[in-house]
Amino acid sequence: MDHSFNCHVYYEDTDLAGIVYYANYLRYIERARTEWVRGLGIDQKAMKAADGVVFAVRRLEADYLSPAHFDDELTVRTRTQAITGARIVLNQDVWRGETLLFSAVVTLVALSSTGQPARMPANIRRQLQ
Amino acid sequence: MDHSFNCHVYYEDTDLAGIVYYANYLRYIERARTEWVRGLGIDQKAMKAADGVVFAVRRLEADYLSPAHFDDELTVRTRTQAITGARIVLNQDVWRGETLLFSAVVTLVALSSTGQPARMPANIRRQLQ
Amino acid sequence: MDHSFNCHVYYEDTDLAGIVYYANYLRYIERARTEWVRGLGIDQKAMKAADGVVFAVRRLEADYLSPAHFDDELTVRTRTQAITGARIVLNQDVWRGETLLFSAVVTLVALSSTGQPARMPANIRRQLQ
Amino acid sequence: MDHSFNCHVYYEDTDLAGIVYYANYLRYIERARTEWVRGLGIDQKAMKAADGVVFAVRRLEADYLSPAHFDDELTVRTRTQAITGARIVLNQDVWRGETLLFSAVVTLVALSSTGQPARMPANIRRQLQ
Repeated sequence: MDHSFNCHVYYEDTDLAGIVYYANYLRYIERARTEWVRGLGIDQKAMKAADGVVFAVRRLEADYLSPAHFDDELTVRTRTQAITGARIVLNQDVWRGETLLFSAVVTLVALSSTGQPARMPANIRRQLQ
Repeated sequence: MDHSFNCHVYYEDTDLAGIVYYANYLRYIERARTEWVRGLGIDQKAMKAADGVVFAVRRLEADYLSPAHFDDELTVRTRTQAITGARIVLNQDVWRGETLLFSAVVTLVALSSTGQPARMPANIRRQLQ
Repeated sequence: MDHSFNCHVYYEDTDLAGIVYYANYLRYIERARTEWVRGLGIDQKAMKAADGVVFAVRRLEADYLSPAHFDDELTVRTRTQAITGARIVLNQDVWRGETLLFSAVVTLVALSSTGQPARMPANIRRQLQ
Repeated sequence: MDHSFNCHVYYEDTDLAGIVYYANYLRYIERARTEWVRGLGIDQKAMKAADGVVFAVRRLEADYLSPAHFDDELTVRTRTQAITGARIVLNQDVWRGETLLFSAVVTLVALSSTGQPARMPANIRRQLQ
């Protein structure tokens, strides 16, 4: 079952081409990941405080299929594709109604406070599975 | 021969993890593309005015290899991998000194003023080859 | 009566100091203005298409009173202070619960498609009063 | 004597009105402050590590006089207006050639690692005077 997150296109998101600037889809899907993780009962602030661990994107494959415009109402759909001890692979798509605008495969890893790859805390891994 | 573009990491680029926010690498490589295109003698403003055409990213594959930090001096290296009538495929890497931090393959297409894929203007295509 | 708009602090909003980057409050209050204007029945896209007019910020006075952090739930409260034929002066405050974090006075003008100051369309002015 | 800092307007900086999004001038002047501080021999990373202190904006007054556009070459001019033990007041103007586009008065304070106002480290204060 996909996780759904709605977001709205504001002035800040557009560029002079009149469409959403390409980097801003990454902001949208990161907001969706934060809400998805929270919905699973994971507190990222507590995780950082307790384990010194943050999630970080390791790899991103993204297709820009159709542009989003100012004032569009968008939905980000997130679903888990794979989880191992060290990484999570997600599909994250951005839709405007029935139109798929953006489709990404995002690989996340856990990073320690020094920025090095870390093992995901066991309780976090259980919640994600 | 690669095109080189330097950029500096400012406060605006970092997030609370103390590293460059992942979407911001897309801003860095887009700055580099703008300078690369200008260096080839292509005026994007004139291209838009004359042909109603802008470049847009169609696909992105990105590996985040090592984090960049506040005050880092970065270099974006851009090189053409392939050009057809409709699209350009670029390699764009971000380095801090001898350390590769971020590596992307970016597929660009031309978009008309209505946001539909367009054929690249012939003179632009010649300049890119 | 104030207009209220909620927004959430995501990773993208923070900087390495662990707080919301100062420019991002301007994004929050601009989202609030967009929703406030929409709530008044003004369609900014139609206004641009019909009259070639967009709203632009002419002056900003902002006090940063207390920092917002990752995952904070914020409320932007917007109220009109003054309206003339050429400009609107708004108060826009950002709250976290009962704590005032940011307080701004924003002066808006209408700009033509060439970026010059323009008279606000009469129907828009009526809706704002 | 003013400190000068050049920056270029990229796609990321513009919005659908075809001009620089209003919050982005705050990014430009913050880049200029970082370079100004570095030019004075102050290492913000060391200051944070040694004293747990970061600079933060406490108040901002900004006039938006004329819009900047894609591909503009801008200069930020920074000069000290006043320094006390607790705060620095700066004038920061953004120019395109001989045209003043944006003019700000920025009040900075030192913040401790908990986000509370702190006294500026004595050595830093000396360097700023």
